[in-house]
Amino acid sequence: MSKTVLPSGRVQPRFAGICTFLRVPQVEDVASENRPIDWAIYGVPSDAGVTFRPGARFGPRAVREASQYIKPYLIEQGVHLAERLSIADAGDAPVNPYSCRQTLDGVAAFASKLGEARQTRLLAIGGDHSIAYANLKATWERRGKPAGGLAVIHFDAHMDTVDEVWGEKWGHASPFRRAIEDGLIDPKSMISIGIRGTLNDPADLNYARQHGVTLVKFDEWRKGGPQALAAFVSRLAKRETYITFDVDAVDPAFCPGTGTPVAGGFTSAEALEAVRSLRGINLVGADIVEVLPDRDVSEITATFAAQLMAEILGLSA
Amino acid sequence: MSKTVLPSGRVQPRFAGICTFLRVPQVEDVASENRPIDWAIYGVPSDAGVTFRPGARFGPRAVREASQYIKPYLIEQGVHLAERLSIADAGDAPVNPYSCRQTLDGVAAFASKLGEARQTRLLAIGGDHSIAYANLKATWERRGKPAGGLAVIHFDAHMDTVDEVWGEKWGHASPFRRAIEDGLIDPKSMISIGIRGTLNDPADLNYARQHGVTLVKFDEWRKGGPQALAAFVSRLAKRETYITFDVDAVDPAFCPGTGTPVAGGFTSAEALEAVRSLRGINLVGADIVEVLPDRDVSEITATFAAQLMAEILGLSA
Amino acid sequence: MSKTVLPSGRVQPRFAGICTFLRVPQVEDVASENRPIDWAIYGVPSDAGVTFRPGARFGPRAVREASQYIKPYLIEQGVHLAERLSIADAGDAPVNPYSCRQTLDGVAAFASKLGEARQTRLLAIGGDHSIAYANLKATWERRGKPAGGLAVIHFDAHMDTVDEVWGEKWGHASPFRRAIEDGLIDPKSMISIGIRGTLNDPADLNYARQHGVTLVKFDEWRKGGPQALAAFVSRLAKRETYITFDVDAVDPAFCPGTGTPVAGGFTSAEALEAVRSLRGINLVGADIVEVLPDRDVSEITATFAAQLMAEILGLSA
Amino acid sequence: MSKTVLPSGRVQPRFAGICTFLRVPQVEDVASENRPIDWAIYGVPSDAGVTFRPGARFGPRAVREASQYIKPYLIEQGVHLAERLSIADAGDAPVNPYSCRQTLDGVAAFASKLGEARQTRLLAIGGDHSIAYANLKATWERRGKPAGGLAVIHFDAHMDTVDEVWGEKWGHASPFRRAIEDGLIDPKSMISIGIRGTLNDPADLNYARQHGVTLVKFDEWRKGGPQALAAFVSRLAKRETYITFDVDAVDPAFCPGTGTPVAGGFTSAEALEAVRSLRGINLVGADIVEVLPDRDVSEITATFAAQLMAEILGLSA
Amino acid sequence: MSKTVLPSGRVQPRFAGICTFLRVPQVEDVASENRPIDWAIYGVPSDAGVTFRPGARFGPRAVREASQYIKPYLIEQGVHLAERLSIADAGDAPVNPYSCRQTLDGVAAFASKLGEARQTRLLAIGGDHSIAYANLKATWERRGKPAGGLAVIHFDAHMDTVDEVWGEKWGHASPFRRAIEDGLIDPKSMISIGIRGTLNDPADLNYARQHGVTLVKFDEWRKGGPQALAAFVSRLAKRETYITFDVDAVDPAFCPGTGTPVAGGFTSAEALEAVRSLRGINLVGADIVEVLPDRDVSEITATFAAQLMAEILGLSA
Amino acid sequence: MSKTVLPSGRVQPRFAGICTFLRVPQVEDVASENRPIDWAIYGVPSDAGVTFRPGARFGPRAVREASQYIKPYLIEQGVHLAERLSIADAGDAPVNPYSCRQTLDGVAAFASKLGEARQTRLLAIGGDHSIAYANLKATWERRGKPAGGLAVIHFDAHMDTVDEVWGEKWGHASPFRRAIEDGLIDPKSMISIGIRGTLNDPADLNYARQHGVTLVKFDEWRKGGPQALAAFVSRLAKRETYITFDVDAVDPAFCPGTGTPVAGGFTSAEALEAVRSLRGINLVGADIVEVLPDRDVSEITATFAAQLMAEILGLSA
Repeated sequence: MSKTVLPSGRVQPRFAGICTFLRVPQVEDVASENRPIDWAIYGVPSDAGVTFRPGARFGPRAVREASQYIKPYLIEQGVHLAERLSIADAGDAPVNPYSCRQTLDGVAAFASKLGEARQTRLLAIGGDHSIAYANLKATWERRGKPAGGLAVIHFDAHMDTVDEVWGEKWGHASPFRRAIEDGLIDPKSMISIGIRGTLNDPADLNYARQHGVTLVKFDEWRKGGPQALAAFVSRLAKRETYITFDVDAVDPAFCPGTGTPVAGGFTSAEALEAVRSLRGINLVGADIVEVLPDRDVSEITATFAAQLMAEILGLSA
Repeated sequence: MSKTVLPSGRVQPRFAGICTFLRVPQVEDVASENRPIDWAIYGVPSDAGVTFRPGARFGPRAVREASQYIKPYLIEQGVHLAERLSIADAGDAPVNPYSCRQTLDGVAAFASKLGEARQTRLLAIGGDHSIAYANLKATWERRGKPAGGLAVIHFDAHMDTVDEVWGEKWGHASPFRRAIEDGLIDPKSMISIGIRGTLNDPADLNYARQHGVTLVKFDEWRKGGPQALAAFVSRLAKRETYITFDVDAVDPAFCPGTGTPVAGGFTSAEALEAVRSLRGINLVGADIVEVLPDRDVSEITATFAAQLMAEILGLSA
Repeated sequence: MSKTVLPSGRVQPRFAGICTFLRVPQVEDVASENRPIDWAIYGVPSDAGVTFRPGARFGPRAVREASQYIKPYLIEQGVHLAERLSIADAGDAPVNPYSCRQTLDGVAAFASKLGEARQTRLLAIGGDHSIAYANLKATWERRGKPAGGLAVIHFDAHMDTVDEVWGEKWGHASPFRRAIEDGLIDPKSMISIGIRGTLNDPADLNYARQHGVTLVKFDEWRKGGPQALAAFVSRLAKRETYITFDVDAVDPAFCPGTGTPVAGGFTSAEALEAVRSLRGINLVGADIVEVLPDRDVSEITATFAAQLMAEILGLSA
Repeated sequence: MSKTVLPSGRVQPRFAGICTFLRVPQVEDVASENRPIDWAIYGVPSDAGVTFRPGARFGPRAVREASQYIKPYLIEQGVHLAERLSIADAGDAPVNPYSCRQTLDGVAAFASKLGEARQTRLLAIGGDHSIAYANLKATWERRGKPAGGLAVIHFDAHMDTVDEVWGEKWGHASPFRRAIEDGLIDPKSMISIGIRGTLNDPADLNYARQHGVTLVKFDEWRKGGPQALAAFVSRLAKRETYITFDVDAVDPAFCPGTGTPVAGGFTSAEALEAVRSLRGINLVGADIVEVLPDRDVSEITATFAAQLMAEILGLSA
Repeated sequence: MSKTVLPSGRVQPRFAGICTFLRVPQVEDVASENRPIDWAIYGVPSDAGVTFRPGARFGPRAVREASQYIKPYLIEQGVHLAERLSIADAGDAPVNPYSCRQTLDGVAAFASKLGEARQTRLLAIGGDHSIAYANLKATWERRGKPAGGLAVIHFDAHMDTVDEVWGEKWGHASPFRRAIEDGLIDPKSMISIGIRGTLNDPADLNYARQHGVTLVKFDEWRKGGPQALAAFVSRLAKRETYITFDVDAVDPAFCPGTGTPVAGGFTSAEALEAVRSLRGINLVGADIVEVLPDRDVSEITATFAAQLMAEILGLSA
Repeated sequence: MSKTVLPSGRVQPRFAGICTFLRVPQVEDVASENRPIDWAIYGVPSDAGVTFRPGARFGPRAVREASQYIKPYLIEQGVHLAERLSIADAGDAPVNPYSCRQTLDGVAAFASKLGEARQTRLLAIGGDHSIAYANLKATWERRGKPAGGLAVIHFDAHMDTVDEVWGEKWGHASPFRRAIEDGLIDPKSMISIGIRGTLNDPADLNYARQHGVTLVKFDEWRKGGPQALAAFVSRLAKRETYITFDVDAVDPAFCPGTGTPVAGGFTSAEALEAVRSLRGINLVGADIVEVLPDRDVSEITATFAAQLMAEILGLSA
């Protein structure tokens, strides 16, 4: 029997039925059968932290819908998700659209109660990137608050280590600044891939570099990036590692549905290949953020995010 | 306590959470509490019956999503749905995308088991108009197969009494032909409103007229239609009545997301006003059909359908 | 046998096949059978005359495609087009995208050769409104250059009697100015319906009024317009009459696909009703202009134009 | 010489140039010539107050762009704006995307400095409806803080007198609650037109009624609304009056680009007609709010808002 | 004189005229001049076989329109199509939207009569991938039913060798299963390129591998795929070869207009380069399938398909 | 102090305010402070020269808007634009939509007066490619009419050296033919990159080759193009060089908003990388052309063009 019970395509085609992420059962249904949960996926419908274009609050809904067409067997990884993992949809975390901070507190509290701490890993679907802080915090706590912080593999066009914007320290430009300050992550075991474009000034790149983050700008990625990532991963060994993926890492042609697009990024093939190359890491949590459905076209951004969700889950199978 | 328990907006804003129709609980959850169900809403994700533009299979999903923003108190009717009715989402009926007939059989069988026959009325969300036959059949059977058939109030640009198209007798051009033949409905107690545009020939209008259907073309509606409808309704008295609403009754400016659009129909205000004028009928079932999300713009068609769903439910509150 | 041979829906569904207007045969095919042609429909893919948003050069192509779903029997008029009229598609007139004037000369020359002068009436599908001049000229010549000029029923948000713009006297702001000057039309037998919105100054309205045009602004239409039109029509008696319909007469909600949209116009139902009310006029030619597909949504503008095309043809059946 | 100097269409077609509202000069340029300003138009790019779909922060930009095609002579009002009024664009007010309250304070402070208090009236372009509070406050103060408060003519699908949402008292559901509490407006001289659809409960309608607001639901408008408005206006006499127009008053077919759309509202023709009927009121300020460009199609919402802006200005000419 | 007579751009710009594929003459017109036909292009407006998103029935119409802008001289191949080949548009094959099987029978019968068997090669434009079976069958028969079956070069995200779905053996998941069973193609001389993403289970990949198909998953393509293809082609020598191209082989950023999109595929440049590399094969037929216009954006999918059509024709010139 | 004074993000977020290119001050404002201008950016809202799809007249407006999100520090180049360069927005040049030639004359005259000839370089934002002639001419004159003409680096899918189309010698197919004839540019120091797709015949490629243009077709670019460009650049040494960038050089997936799209071009990453590789050239002027906003999706084309604008400016910093 599969570890995750998916609805039969015989009675419920992929365009039918109430949507859960990847069509997996809801957390309560799995819990009612006393089955363990390897991964709890939950949405964070918040864009309280954005600095430019809002709307990522509709991201979880769009990714749930696009993920209906994702099937359990991953061709490239050669893994059958449902047979190897017990996955459940935990619904959406509570949010306060008028407050970043209250939203983050609520999300962390919600996430801390999902499944069983050591067993159940958390995959958060944003929402804007500010929510990564909350999922990182919940993950770090579930892992017993490791002293050095978690290792992080970070895909993004932006470094997200700005101190504050318009007086707000918890917005989507700042999650990794806060996470470093609070010891949730270890900047010396963090790699940021895909950084590019323009900034008001180079301060947040400098902050990252000064704290030891391995920074691979996208132009550098095109010249040896996969090798640099492989070297980083091999240094990690079995260190507890978190993946945070901002879809604006990918070029706007592939992910137009995002709030701060930057021309000149990954193709989706390059990005998926990079993620698949991470097999073997000790993955303890992840997030996929910044899907903004109102800017999407033909749901290609949400479709990419849904595929990415499956690939990240597959890494641990 | 409300008859329908809706999620609190404090923890779950209307852009958050797994979508059910109007955010009502699922049938199983209501059943597990041994509470009665006044209305079971279910989707029929089928466009197996279309003759022109397919895609209505995605209709239930789109209406579920658009209905998240519909709140329980209806301003014009002065009715609080949740306080007056127990409503539940039954999910989607099984379908066979390759066969109209098998789909209709499956839908009727599925619908026949929802709730308790006399207590629970059925609101089907299409899918194409062919599915009206199945919901009519299930409703007619639940009401004890009344000899004369059900009365019908039918909003549509098309009469849908064509005998067959490309050899198919169960497609979306034919549901009322079949329902008349099978005694499910009483053509002499049927009114069709909004008919307009062009036809291959006038045969299906003639069929309807010959069987006694009251036919109000849209140009006639604009000259005294509401009065004609009121007169029809008053003749019905407490006769068991079914409402079938094809969104192409409404002009494509208001409902672009449909498969066989015809210029020159209702405004949404006119259509909603007509439906609200039906208060007092003995409503025993209904369907809303032909929402085609891929042709919709800014979800205005789905938003209209969701409002209409609430108004139809309100008629019985 | 029908006067127009349409393809069988049995082998060619309405989403199939090479598109001609309303699926009628091409002029050469009808001619090769020595059958007369009552109406020749032709496209004028020109936006050489626009002052604001270009793209109407793609109008004929879009209307051809949208008209595939228009069937031959008109419900409101009770007329079967194919049985009553021989209609043919003459393809597109030659144009010079770099010159209004050369385009108009080419169109008039092309149109003058279609079918047989007295027998065959011309329905031109624009293209911008400048092309009305050419079709008017060809029509006027075919009718034997009647001294007083043709009567005109004109639906539009703009009067189109500006003398010149940026030095161009043949652009889409000027066709009726030129047609009046050249005696093609009789301003005292011209009615302009739907005028509204804003102007640089009231000069072109004043020009029209001074020449005797009956001007029914859209706010006036809403207060007794149909009666005013009926009175105008009854004064026309059997005068040879031309219909020119700019889709921007209709509100942008119904016809977003146009180059100079003005909020606050006809609903499509109102517009079609007005056209259908013209039964009985001596219709000798017509045009439908300013469909701009790149601004259309879900083809609702083209669908309206296609329906309108059928209704105008029906007036003469 | 015109009171407002517009760029010549000879060198700057309406698709050319840096956009200001209606192509009027910027406030600094008018001020540098020591010319008075009758109306200062300014944008408020804020959606900090929204409860559902964000994005109205891009509203001012979209309306500026759509207003390029609006010309100075108003056909229905028979008024030439540039000849009768000195109008200037004041740019956008400062905002804090993370705080409703700070945004409102900043907007009110900004607005209070525009032009000369008595001479210069304020037209604010939102942004979400919360910003009406700030423009009302600035207007009320410029008029010398009239004891009874301003009269208000309010077009909207929602009453916007909710006390608070998610702990926020300054959001877009609450501006008129706050304005009544603070004495900026006189609820007994306030009319709210177009209210419709659904609510969590009828509390905010009840609040309005209890405070004496004249409430014309949209279904009531369709049965005698214009007469009710005329009666209200005649009671106002020369009372200082403010117009607040939420574009969701209009049906989503005409104004899809808005954040909380409700099916079944005004056509744009009906709405413009209602506004034009206000000629003669003592208009002292206005706002147009809730344009959400990401949901707009072919800019029809922004085009409507731009036309509305011109009509409101015309009322005072 | 050119072998294909194209309309002069002097009188018919590329946005003008009734659309045929690549503006080539219709089959009847070429036949009436007793000229041979090297390639007959025909549409198959069928989506009767789809398992997810329907709408490919509108594919031929969209490709005809997009192909208007394709010119006869191919820059990369250095070939002038019109001078080297006689190409004609055969219109659309008959279809039955309610039956895969009847559609395939009708298409094969239609195709079998086009041109002259040995001389005229068939290029089918879908429609969903199920129609490949019919064009393969007609091609195989025209070539004298070669015992080993045709060689096949297959671009796709999916293997399409599923046995059946919902009881249907002729749907778009199964064409190559059926073609292998019926001996139309030689699996040992078949290469499938671009396979990727997710499956219910690996059964259809296994079927293909077990029958000897050369399977190049997209991640494998990125590591030496062009070399593998070149090796395959050199092994083919002059074997009669068929190309089948499902546009979902290409990434959804380039081909969003398709029904079962999979993130992470070819760029259009990579795909066109792969096709151009096939010069020298003995090409006897081809199809391009799964263009779904309702999901396309700015016609980029149809534009790609039109370019691909020209490149495939060029291979044989 | 920065050489360019940008608005503070504290009071004017990037979604706020009247739009100028990159938020730089207007030319008049810089001039009024007697500050020099290194680069004057101006729009040319003209599509008078197009041969296929018009609408590029709205290009400058769209690029101004998209450029609001571009910040002054360029990550890849490591350059802070505002600190290194004085940049100003000169507004839009005058155009005559009815005449290519008059438009070009007007643009060249306008451009010739901007800033100070030697100091101020010109960056023109189209508009169709015909306008490159005018900016080239103005640049050439400002540089003292160098005898050999300017060197040119040309990115494009088309060569644009056609002699004439429909009698027009100044359209967008011809700017480099005219510029070569008039000695503005040196074809032997011109490189054209990205040429691909289809042509009526190879004449314009032949013209270019015969005049010594280095032609790098896109399929050639993929095999060593960057090296070829580097070699070309090193040959240029400090020759005065002009960059002309037609966004259709980039694949339609990245730049759908253009009038003559050709499948199979640059990714945006490849294109930006190529431009950044030009650091060190003696850049004296540039243009970015053929942005057609009505065909754009989610503004990705305009966003690319805005990024490109910043990168080109950065080359000279």
